[in-house]
Amino acid sequence: MIVRPRPGFLRLLFVVRGTILPRVLPHVLVIAGLSCLVVWTLQRGLLRLPVTSPAPLSLLGIALSIFLGFRNNACYDRWWEARKQWGALLIELRAFTHTAIALLDDGRAELPVVGRETARRLVYRNIAFAHALAAHLRGHDARADISRFVSEPECSRVLTSGNRPNALLREQERELATLRREGRLSDITWGALSGRVHGLMSVFAACERIRTTPVPFAYTVLLHRTAYIFCLLLPFGLAEALGWFTPVLAAMIAYTFFGLDRLSDELEEPFGDAPNDLPLLALARTGEINLLEALGEPQPEPLRPRDFILE
Amino acid sequence: MIVRPRPGFLRLLFVVRGTILPRVLPHVLVIAGLSCLVVWTLQRGLLRLPVTSPAPLSLLGIALSIFLGFRNNACYDRWWEARKQWGALLIELRAFTHTAIALLDDGRAELPVVGRETARRLVYRNIAFAHALAAHLRGHDARADISRFVSEPECSRVLTSGNRPNALLREQERELATLRREGRLSDITWGALSGRVHGLMSVFAACERIRTTPVPFAYTVLLHRTAYIFCLLLPFGLAEALGWFTPVLAAMIAYTFFGLDRLSDELEEPFGDAPNDLPLLALARTGEINLLEALGEPQPEPLRPRDFILE
Amino acid sequence: MIVRPRPGFLRLLFVVRGTILPRVLPHVLVIAGLSCLVVWTLQRGLLRLPVTSPAPLSLLGIALSIFLGFRNNACYDRWWEARKQWGALLIELRAFTHTAIALLDDGRAELPVVGRETARRLVYRNIAFAHALAAHLRGHDARADISRFVSEPECSRVLTSGNRPNALLREQERELATLRREGRLSDITWGALSGRVHGLMSVFAACERIRTTPVPFAYTVLLHRTAYIFCLLLPFGLAEALGWFTPVLAAMIAYTFFGLDRLSDELEEPFGDAPNDLPLLALARTGEINLLEALGEPQPEPLRPRDFILE
Amino acid sequence: MIVRPRPGFLRLLFVVRGTILPRVLPHVLVIAGLSCLVVWTLQRGLLRLPVTSPAPLSLLGIALSIFLGFRNNACYDRWWEARKQWGALLIELRAFTHTAIALLDDGRAELPVVGRETARRLVYRNIAFAHALAAHLRGHDARADISRFVSEPECSRVLTSGNRPNALLREQERELATLRREGRLSDITWGALSGRVHGLMSVFAACERIRTTPVPFAYTVLLHRTAYIFCLLLPFGLAEALGWFTPVLAAMIAYTFFGLDRLSDELEEPFGDAPNDLPLLALARTGEINLLEALGEPQPEPLRPRDFILE
Amino acid sequence: MIVRPRPGFLRLLFVVRGTILPRVLPHVLVIAGLSCLVVWTLQRGLLRLPVTSPAPLSLLGIALSIFLGFRNNACYDRWWEARKQWGALLIELRAFTHTAIALLDDGRAELPVVGRETARRLVYRNIAFAHALAAHLRGHDARADISRFVSEPECSRVLTSGNRPNALLREQERELATLRREGRLSDITWGALSGRVHGLMSVFAACERIRTTPVPFAYTVLLHRTAYIFCLLLPFGLAEALGWFTPVLAAMIAYTFFGLDRLSDELEEPFGDAPNDLPLLALARTGEINLLEALGEPQPEPLRPRDFILE
Repeated sequence: MIVRPRPGFLRLLFVVRGTILPRVLPHVLVIAGLSCLVVWTLQRGLLRLPVTSPAPLSLLGIALSIFLGFRNNACYDRWWEARKQWGALLIELRAFTHTAIALLDDGRAELPVVGRETARRLVYRNIAFAHALAAHLRGHDARADISRFVSEPECSRVLTSGNRPNALLREQERELATLRREGRLSDITWGALSGRVHGLMSVFAACERIRTTPVPFAYTVLLHRTAYIFCLLLPFGLAEALGWFTPVLAAMIAYTFFGLDRLSDELEEPFGDAPNDLPLLALARTGEINLLEALGEPQPEPLRPRDFILE
Repeated sequence: MIVRPRPGFLRLLFVVRGTILPRVLPHVLVIAGLSCLVVWTLQRGLLRLPVTSPAPLSLLGIALSIFLGFRNNACYDRWWEARKQWGALLIELRAFTHTAIALLDDGRAELPVVGRETARRLVYRNIAFAHALAAHLRGHDARADISRFVSEPECSRVLTSGNRPNALLREQERELATLRREGRLSDITWGALSGRVHGLMSVFAACERIRTTPVPFAYTVLLHRTAYIFCLLLPFGLAEALGWFTPVLAAMIAYTFFGLDRLSDELEEPFGDAPNDLPLLALARTGEINLLEALGEPQPEPLRPRDFILE
Repeated sequence: MIVRPRPGFLRLLFVVRGTILPRVLPHVLVIAGLSCLVVWTLQRGLLRLPVTSPAPLSLLGIALSIFLGFRNNACYDRWWEARKQWGALLIELRAFTHTAIALLDDGRAELPVVGRETARRLVYRNIAFAHALAAHLRGHDARADISRFVSEPECSRVLTSGNRPNALLREQERELATLRREGRLSDITWGALSGRVHGLMSVFAACERIRTTPVPFAYTVLLHRTAYIFCLLLPFGLAEALGWFTPVLAAMIAYTFFGLDRLSDELEEPFGDAPNDLPLLALARTGEINLLEALGEPQPEPLRPRDFILE
Repeated sequence: MIVRPRPGFLRLLFVVRGTILPRVLPHVLVIAGLSCLVVWTLQRGLLRLPVTSPAPLSLLGIALSIFLGFRNNACYDRWWEARKQWGALLIELRAFTHTAIALLDDGRAELPVVGRETARRLVYRNIAFAHALAAHLRGHDARADISRFVSEPECSRVLTSGNRPNALLREQERELATLRREGRLSDITWGALSGRVHGLMSVFAACERIRTTPVPFAYTVLLHRTAYIFCLLLPFGLAEALGWFTPVLAAMIAYTFFGLDRLSDELEEPFGDAPNDLPLLALARTGEINLLEALGEPQPEPLRPRDFILE
Repeated sequence: MIVRPRPGFLRLLFVVRGTILPRVLPHVLVIAGLSCLVVWTLQRGLLRLPVTSPAPLSLLGIALSIFLGFRNNACYDRWWEARKQWGALLIELRAFTHTAIALLDDGRAELPVVGRETARRLVYRNIAFAHALAAHLRGHDARADISRFVSEPECSRVLTSGNRPNALLREQERELATLRREGRLSDITWGALSGRVHGLMSVFAACERIRTTPVPFAYTVLLHRTAYIFCLLLPFGLAEALGWFTPVLAAMIAYTFFGLDRLSDELEEPFGDAPNDLPLLALARTGEINLLEALGEPQPEPLRPRDFILE
């Protein structure tokens, strides 16, 4: 995710880093070049265009704007829903932690150490879950993070599972059920903690849904194709009416359409590594810090953006 | 569902498989042909068009874009809601499984075998439910899958029911109530598992709602009709102003409008067999794998896309 | 609700039944006739129009499209929310039934008959509720259906109430409280069933909200009026530029605008008897069938569409 | 709220009462008058306009339509959310009532009178809450209604509070806690009723949010201003092209834009006294009727619309 | 937040305070000045523009309107969601307070003082939470407010935490768990209060999500840039067709586009200090007043708007 203080009104016009410009520039230049060629040949009389009005092209352009707007909307919603799910992850992690510590370990010396140890084990497993989820969505390997927070032999069970976040939640449920069976959690307090694990599972499944189900492929193709052909037709439609203004306007329109198309692509898969994707590593780190603070243990530094990009 | 790595900027222009092009091509060609005919007769002086401006047609075209955009939105929302429901299905299946196993079978040798057997029976019934739901929505017969996971005489009761997924949930509720009556589930733990069954029922009813309630038929007709007549009028409106550019632009516009209309049709019924429909079989398989892994039993392979299509 | 297999691409152009065409045809013909008159007088030189450009009319037309699109959206949302509520009704009915039967009657011979009788009474009352709700929303009288499923003296109490669905839910709550007081339901199981009754109450109140609160009347008037006057002005704006194409295009635009206006009217009140309204009777029947099947009793046939219309 | 049977297609064109026309007519007439003046001076040659094309004005007009559509949408959503909250109010009131009566008073003679009295006091307090909320949102004084349903000394405590609906809910919670402490409600049944009070509090806070937080003031100003200036510019832009059609079209456009602007204003504050605002008094009365019927006491008549307006 | 009675129809045209005008005026003047220059040089014959039609510019303008409308929508949704979260904060605060007081202290003299003291401590901590949250989101220091309501040594623990609102919720959970362990709260009543704390945590995490996750930076740049260049091109496109009307229309369009762009910027970060941002201090004060009233203690005055601005 790009994190930078909003530049001033003017500087905003010339910012490059963190924008979509570098990725669409080649295509915009193609359109501008084609426009120059069309205008030049037209003014030399080498070409006679039958087009006498740019209005029909406008119709296609407006229809295209409406449909691009739709896809853009759908992709932005996916991105924002993904962010909401990670917000819910933090809620469930903190709520579980506060409740588990308060129920099992009240921090006073006269309580047996075993309660504190149990709470710590439950909370550590949740930290591992946050890292495992980030890695699962990004396609990384979270082996190191998991083994820091989960001890053997559970750790090997988790690492050999095809679905590590799911395996961690299963272990969590199992330990909660054991605590209930041993009478250290009542039915009600077991239900409260198990409800939090259910919440984590919802977050996990929602993230998987977003990751595995792209916007229908036919949209991507249909709109990308129409946008590209439209921009290729533009110079022919505008050259008669605009003369040497054609390259400027055609490039502007191409920049807007290609830029939105490209940005939609990035937002469609919010868990990737692209600059506008979600900072999963930073969010997982935030969770780790919150949970370690609740345990009263030393915490790592939060992740900082590098070159305005937070991972 | 079409699953393929996003092709490059250029290749995306020429992809055919998985796009809507093959299904709308004949109609686009009709429009292109008509355009050629109109331009040819016009330039030969065989036809005199009274139309001197394409602006009025633009008005209809923009109105049409707005209304097509609406239907497209409504259909996409149905598709995405259907996918969310199947995501919720996986959540409820996993949550039920983790809780049931944890409560009834803690995996240690000293516990009686009967708890493990019970948990296994409950989880197996849920796997059968996932397959039965996929088959019910697709109009297939899930007899084989159900009989693999549910034993007699329950299996015959389910298979003779007019509504198999519903019958399976009824059996599930009945067994949970029996476990509660026998004291193996407390009121609270019974409530937690019964809440999951309620969640499965919600998913089932939501899927049925989407399947049985199409977007009002009058929309489909009104928009399809207007789009078709609009594209038939296009050549007459554009020929004077665009000359031999007419077939190109008319075909582009027809491709966009017919393509969106057609894509909306596919997304409207997300549980069908069309390429852009939801991969119900693969999702049910995913559920089966997750649940069998939780039981510690051997799991089948996940379904893989064939020709980029995941069923 | 109109239920028909989607006709082919071409037939869709000529379908009449189930479309909005018959209801807007007279008005479309008025516009077409006026257009002919304007073109004829214009070409005869009997009329001189000061209008030299159709562009200003386009502006009004596009603004109108955007605002009609808004109302259309709002009305469709009401319709779809109404359908969702009836979906939720089926969820709550089934969930209540499964739970009630499982808790009170496990279907085995050694259990006392009284449990089965109680469950049957509770479920029958829910069937009566579904029919009473459908009748309440449609303004029918559900006396026959209620008396089939609720016995005296409760039936008279319900029939004399000004709000029968509400009265049935009150009776349901009362019986649940009695069962709890008699110890046949524990606090927790009482809470589970009472939660379902709360769900039914939510459905009921949401349906009442949609039925009694139309889209603000001023919208309907403002948009209807603007659309009509716009279509009356159309021929004057288009005749100069389009000649004898005017009637065709004006009729197309009128068909689209009047059609959407009319369709919005129908969807605004989803509980009426119009062809595009919701099939309340069929949905209530589905509920009855599901519940009777759960009780193991003979079930009526589901309602079938007549002339493609499901009531 | 305006409640009237939908007039016929034609009458709808001439309806005045309940529409936005009277409030925008003066401004529409200003625009029409200005248009006449411009056309007259133009045709007399007293004015020479440099404008040769209405197209640039169209651009501003379409942008304005999109932005007005946005504000309109936001205001309608506020109005509809407010109505949903009052729907939720009725749900919570009825659910509380049914549960409280069923738990505390089963209507049979052998039960002690004290249960019935308690239930009656709880339900009466809820009726007072509905009236207090309506009055609070409208800025009225509900002293009379509150003192009818709450007895001393509680009534004075409530009336002296700065926030009467909140004070009533506090009293409700207090009595529920007392009932629990006295053993007349178990923890679970206390939780069920307290959950309903929580629901009432949510409704109350949501209504307060809508009432105290208008759509950002800058929107209102920006759009109102742009719409007004746009309509003032219209005659200059259209006169050349449209001649004496200018006043008609300018008035139509002004009517649509001012009408939507004005309607948005009304819907933005759904709790006011304007004709399109919500019928809070009628809704509170409905609640009173439902609750008194549940208690078996005589009920007042429902409020009827006067001059098609329901308060 | 700007709070002012809606000025009359005419005055609304000239209001300055609380509008976006002062911040976009310089840029609007630049566009107007450029327009004058273009028209002057054009009429002097010093410049020959190749542009003969403003239609192509319209196309870009309409596309831009649609995309600006999208960003505007997304930013408004963030602002309104933020307001909803603060509404939910008030709900949870009041509900917790009513329940805690009712359960622990029924206000009658015969009860031990300790219950009242405990309830007071819990409620005070919630007041501190409201102030700490407002300060956390605004980047202020809430030291004074926290130390008024939380006593030592807890206060130092909270003040040294990196995340004060989170630390306060942790303390709350800890005290609730202690009360449960001491038997002063049953499992069920503990669950009810702990559920409210969970609600507060949800509000907190949602506010943090909105604060730390801006709308993707590339949108801001893309739209700001396109809008600015579009307005710079406007004079060249319009001057031929509009003559000295060009500065008026160009300034109007620039005002609308820059105004919406700017307003979106403000709403995007609803927790800042800009005039259209949310009145966090006033909302926290409202919470304090409600909670102190529930305790029967003297309350501060509500915050009043200064110069129509509520902080």
